[in-house]
Amino acid sequence: MEKILYEGKSKTVCEGPTDDTYIIRFKDTATAFNGEKKEDLTNKGFLNAAISNLIYKYLEENGIKTHLIKELDETSVLVRKAEIVMVEVRIRNVAAGSFSKKYGVAEGAPLACTVLEFCLKDDALGDPMINEYHILALQKATKQELQIISDMAFKVNDFMRKYFREIGIELVDFKIEFGKTPDGEIILADEISPDTCRFWDLKTMEKLDKDRFRQDLGNVEEAYMEMLRRIGL
Amino acid sequence: MEKILYEGKSKTVCEGPTDDTYIIRFKDTATAFNGEKKEDLTNKGFLNAAISNLIYKYLEENGIKTHLIKELDETSVLVRKAEIVMVEVRIRNVAAGSFSKKYGVAEGAPLACTVLEFCLKDDALGDPMINEYHILALQKATKQELQIISDMAFKVNDFMRKYFREIGIELVDFKIEFGKTPDGEIILADEISPDTCRFWDLKTMEKLDKDRFRQDLGNVEEAYMEMLRRIGL
Repeated sequence: MEKILYEGKSKTVCEGPTDDTYIIRFKDTATAFNGEKKEDLTNKGFLNAAISNLIYKYLEENGIKTHLIKELDETSVLVRKAEIVMVEVRIRNVAAGSFSKKYGVAEGAPLACTVLEFCLKDDALGDPMINEYHILALQKATKQELQIISDMAFKVNDFMRKYFREIGIELVDFKIEFGKTPDGEIILADEISPDTCRFWDLKTMEKLDKDRFRQDLGNVEEAYMEMLRRIGL
Repeated sequence: MEKILYEGKSKTVCEGPTDDTYIIRFKDTATAFNGEKKEDLTNKGFLNAAISNLIYKYLEENGIKTHLIKELDETSVLVRKAEIVMVEVRIRNVAAGSFSKKYGVAEGAPLACTVLEFCLKDDALGDPMINEYHILALQKATKQELQIISDMAFKVNDFMRKYFREIGIELVDFKIEFGKTPDGEIILADEISPDTCRFWDLKTMEKLDKDRFRQDLGNVEEAYMEMLRRIGL
């Protein structure tokens, strides 16, 4: 039996077949509000794996280095071994979620510029927002790493925003994570899926992402399926 | 009777004798936790006015532009008219307060570098932390203004840290605010006092600041008086 290295809320990371790989298994579990809300959703693991792999392939084709090596089965992916940087990155194109709440800005309000924000990856502390000075003071990443991560995050946003507009989706915001390979390269890790992005239908403004689960809007599986359909199955 | 322009928690801003001035009157009211805790403390207005004026004079002598024109009486100051920038700046040299709580770092822990953080000045929203991208996206200040403000804040810290070390005080952290004069100059505004700084005695680590009030440590007036005594009365 393969060794489990990390049991996450929606994914399990296992030892890979070689020293420089991991296997990531997507689970059907959906969680929100730092794990307070939790439910199993039919096909979620399959849908997120399929969507994330398609997006990662698109980003790779555009020169973004990611951890993706290849799909192993419907919910499992072989990836490059990388130590996760303990700082998450959020990019916001339109006001929504915690940004709207925290700064008193109506959801859907346009922003004068694209926003990048960092959060400390720490469930016990509730993944608090953190700035570059904090990150350097707490030695969670180096200045050079933060520069690479910020540049990559804005590039990912440019490619994704264009990509999603073409399939009738507004990319409202998203969260990404980065890994550091044993030879020190910073690559895109984790997943990009309706769990980690806000996707709004450009015409109807219908939400096609995890907010359907968070806000009990119903038809979660159907929304994720619709995203997969548009992205390319 | 002079016209009150703004009634703050610990100060009142009134029209000045000329179009380009305000009068600031320091009050004895102490507040904490966004106004939830409130009390009148004997001599607080006088002590904060005296301390703040001495620090502002020291900073002016070192080339920092401030709003200070002159003292009018024990609790009143004549200042240059300036529109307050709606973003507060905090500088942290040592972990304490909300930083310690938010990031799980012991109070008193040294930091690998000096931290600068911005907060949105908005009582209704609880003065949330905000980053540079948020500030630009919400158009609370321009990129150029933020650069000037950050540079000034670090300079103020360098001068103050040196100054306080010489009188046996560790400058743990502080909050400052900036104003924009009618001709667009960014100047230091508001106050610098035990209400807005954390001051620890370098030998005993005793707190000589508003944490005595926040945390019900007693001898608040005595601590403020001790700070004034060391600073130079």
